[in-house]
Amino acid sequence: MKNQIRLSVATPSKDAFVSITSRIRDAVTELGLKDGLVHLHALHTTCGLTINENADPDVLTDLRTRLEEMVVWNHPQDRHGEGNSAAHLKCSLMGTSLSVPVQNGVLALGTWQGIFLAEFDGPRNRSLIITAIGCD
Amino acid sequence: MKNQIRLSVATPSKDAFVSITSRIRDAVTELGLKDGLVHLHALHTTCGLTINENADPDVLTDLRTRLEEMVVWNHPQDRHGEGNSAAHLKCSLMGTSLSVPVQNGVLALGTWQGIFLAEFDGPRNRSLIITAIGCD
Amino acid sequence: MKNQIRLSVATPSKDAFVSITSRIRDAVTELGLKDGLVHLHALHTTCGLTINENADPDVLTDLRTRLEEMVVWNHPQDRHGEGNSAAHLKCSLMGTSLSVPVQNGVLALGTWQGIFLAEFDGPRNRSLIITAIGCD
Repeated sequence: MKNQIRLSVATPSKDAFVSITSRIRDAVTELGLKDGLVHLHALHTTCGLTINENADPDVLTDLRTRLEEMVVWNHPQDRHGEGNSAAHLKCSLMGTSLSVPVQNGVLALGTWQGIFLAEFDGPRNRSLIITAIGCD
Repeated sequence: MKNQIRLSVATPSKDAFVSITSRIRDAVTELGLKDGLVHLHALHTTCGLTINENADPDVLTDLRTRLEEMVVWNHPQDRHGEGNSAAHLKCSLMGTSLSVPVQNGVLALGTWQGIFLAEFDGPRNRSLIITAIGCD
Repeated sequence: MKNQIRLSVATPSKDAFVSITSRIRDAVTELGLKDGLVHLHALHTTCGLTINENADPDVLTDLRTRLEEMVVWNHPQDRHGEGNSAAHLKCSLMGTSLSVPVQNGVLALGTWQGIFLAEFDGPRNRSLIITAIGCD
């Protein structure tokens, strides 16, 4: 049985929180993980992975708006020629990997939790490595 | 032997860093983990988990004060009807899970490190899933 | 075979992103990890670990400059006597641990990804615990 798979996620716009919860559920099934952790790693430096509310999309809009204000796109002191240093900082603030418990084959998320790829310099195709770690 | 247990943490106020270090130590013992990682996952979207100083409580006060200034509670552009978008952003900034090495049954924390549940929209009862991952 | 090793990292200045990618590669080899996760934990409360761009050093300069503006060193409300509460907050914003997939003995990083110890109150000698978690 495989222990790691690669996932491709297309992001729709410059800044976006893309729900990947159902795809991670499918990955857990495909990997045959019963009890343990599923680990997600995004192979990029201008997007992140985060867990937040899966119910009211306004939460995600507020996260995006507040993050854009906290980390302005154009900063007079930026030196990086590509002009996307804001996206690099947001990447480090969110983190590029996370892991979620799996119990009896099921992702152990809270009622309101969803897993999101947080795009900060899209639209792009992003790649993730999903790793299954069993408890024994 | 069990590999995962659930922990309940009561938080005392709206914003608070609640030390859970000794409870995680107990969980490691209960889970019988010798060498590996203990993974903590909070099942919520308005609190986080973080490691920071366990000695001078003023550090935690400063973290709270600075975070409240950085992520103001009332933002004129917020759309989310519950009015707690600030707590959702702080949740993603801290992260909802973390893992700590365990060596010979002992949590491998630095001298000044403690593990905290960072409450951003309390007081509430919060639930955590603790997972033991052995090295072999 | 050992499953955990300790790494010592000297940081050169007060704020610095120190690349530790090649040392983590060496640790993976030393630990004999084939498929799984390598987990890094820094034993401190005023530095962090993060993944970001390994190519243009201007990205790291921009991260440092922007973080210093976002989390000012002297805050009138700070109470902590050591005066380094800013470093404590940056520590929690970056996180003190991270894990990276390993495939066939090779760190599965994206083309532009490097692993950095983010120093916020240096120069110091920092200690990390590196843990190898195999997939089976």
